Amino acid sequence: MTYIKQMFASHPVNPSSDHAVVIECITASYSCLEACNACADACLGEKNVAELVDCIRACTDCADVCLATARIMSRFTRTDFKLAGAQLRACIQACEICGADCAKHGEHMEHCRVCAEACRRCAAACQALLAEKP
Amino acid sequence: MTYIKQMFASHPVNPSSDHAVVIECITASYSCLEACNACADACLGEKNVAELVDCIRACTDCADVCLATARIMSRFTRTDFKLAGAQLRACIQACEICGADCAKHGEHMEHCRVCAEACRRCAAACQALLAEKP
Amino acid sequence: MTYIKQMFASHPVNPSSDHAVVIECITASYSCLEACNACADACLGEKNVAELVDCIRACTDCADVCLATARIMSRFTRTDFKLAGAQLRACIQACEICGADCAKHGEHMEHCRVCAEACRRCAAACQALLAEKP
Amino acid sequence: MTYIKQMFASHPVNPSSDHAVVIECITASYSCLEACNACADACLGEKNVAELVDCIRACTDCADVCLATARIMSRFTRTDFKLAGAQLRACIQACEICGADCAKHGEHMEHCRVCAEACRRCAAACQALLAEKP
Repeated sequence: MTYIKQMFASHPVNPSSDHAVVIECITASYSCLEACNACADACLGEKNVAELVDCIRACTDCADVCLATARIMSRFTRTDFKLAGAQLRACIQACEICGADCAKHGEHMEHCRVCAEACRRCAAACQALLAEKP
Repeated sequence: MTYIKQMFASHPVNPSSDHAVVIECITASYSCLEACNACADACLGEKNVAELVDCIRACTDCADVCLATARIMSRFTRTDFKLAGAQLRACIQACEICGADCAKHGEHMEHCRVCAEACRRCAAACQALLAEKP
Repeated sequence: MTYIKQMFASHPVNPSSDHAVVIECITASYSCLEACNACADACLGEKNVAELVDCIRACTDCADVCLATARIMSRFTRTDFKLAGAQLRACIQACEICGADCAKHGEHMEHCRVCAEACRRCAAACQALLAEKP
Repeated sequence: MTYIKQMFASHPVNPSSDHAVVIECITASYSCLEACNACADACLGEKNVAELVDCIRACTDCADVCLATARIMSRFTRTDFKLAGAQLRACIQACEICGADCAKHGEHMEHCRVCAEACRRCAAACQALLAEKP
């Protein structure tokens, strides 16, 4: 479904980190970007948009951080582990904030429930990759 | 696998365009961004990187355009069809250039073969959505 | 103030297009991204946010297209003129839509007046560069 | 020159942090994105591109992080300070790595010298904003 597994299998540089863990991190980050960007717009279309301003803010921030995470983690030419660590920590923070905000609205709005799920998956994937770092 | 289908099913605004076609366009655009961003880095890791400069350029340009396409097409609150059309045309152009460049190297480099496939799929998905516009 | 002029003066590839025109296009695109991203958030903070949904949508779309334009136009290694042209046309479209929407609110909201100005400048800069293309 | 000062002066939400410091952080982040994106391409155009792979990697990573920083810091509707802090730390890391790499090549390549300057300015601006956080 996604291409990153095939890309890593043929990348000329063989990284030391576990491929399955980083692949899940990249896939979860792109998926979270997708969900957050769409959820921000869905919130914008709701009648009670004025009550969803915090949620839209959290979604747009989270989309921005997830994009940076996905792009950086997809590069294998001499990865800097300090930057990777700092980026993963920022991403976990963004996903936790957005996930908590969307979860609050999840009962009444399916798009927020789905977005909260995407955030939880992404935070977990970033945590798993961070745990591997020396 | 991706979240956009669930997001659209719960979006408060019901767009007129066919969901399956726009969903494939968004999914293919995000996937193409993923492939192009990873392929640019894989090319950068090749010994003959000096011969791959055009390919890296094409991949980075294509990643930038695909990101804009995916984000814009994911928004359903009052879509502007003129902008959607212009963006799809730019995306088709980027995918055709990158796809052709990667296809040239596809026999020797698997990451380029995969990237060319992602570009072809994205160009076709954008064409299909463009054909639907009034 | 911006770095692009210095970057082009030292770029190893000497492009055929006029530097001043492309520099203004890049500077205007980054500035428009800056204004649109900030205006979307300022609209989100307004009490009548429900009436500003179209404007927020236009701003976020415009920010996405301007980012792609700025990044692509900043690269001088074998620029593809067909892609450049298509991207500029998409950018003009996005700026015209967002500029018109923000101009409507410009009397009452200074952030929309400033954003409309940024959009007009970016559309004009893209038009000027497009006019140069063979 | 940039629009962010005007945007903040008219933003309906009045943030607690000092405007001058956050404005410099946003301006420096966008400028660093501009410099890094252009420097990556200039390096790609150099004859000794094979020796510049690390530098190109550092520039593209830094551009990605700076973009997220600029966009997030530009939003004033209920800023989450934990996320802001984590994002600033990631940005400082990216700017230090890229700045150090570009500084090594700065004597022979003007575009790397300019990029190193942009990275130093951005790291300093992020540090100054981070120092203000409670």
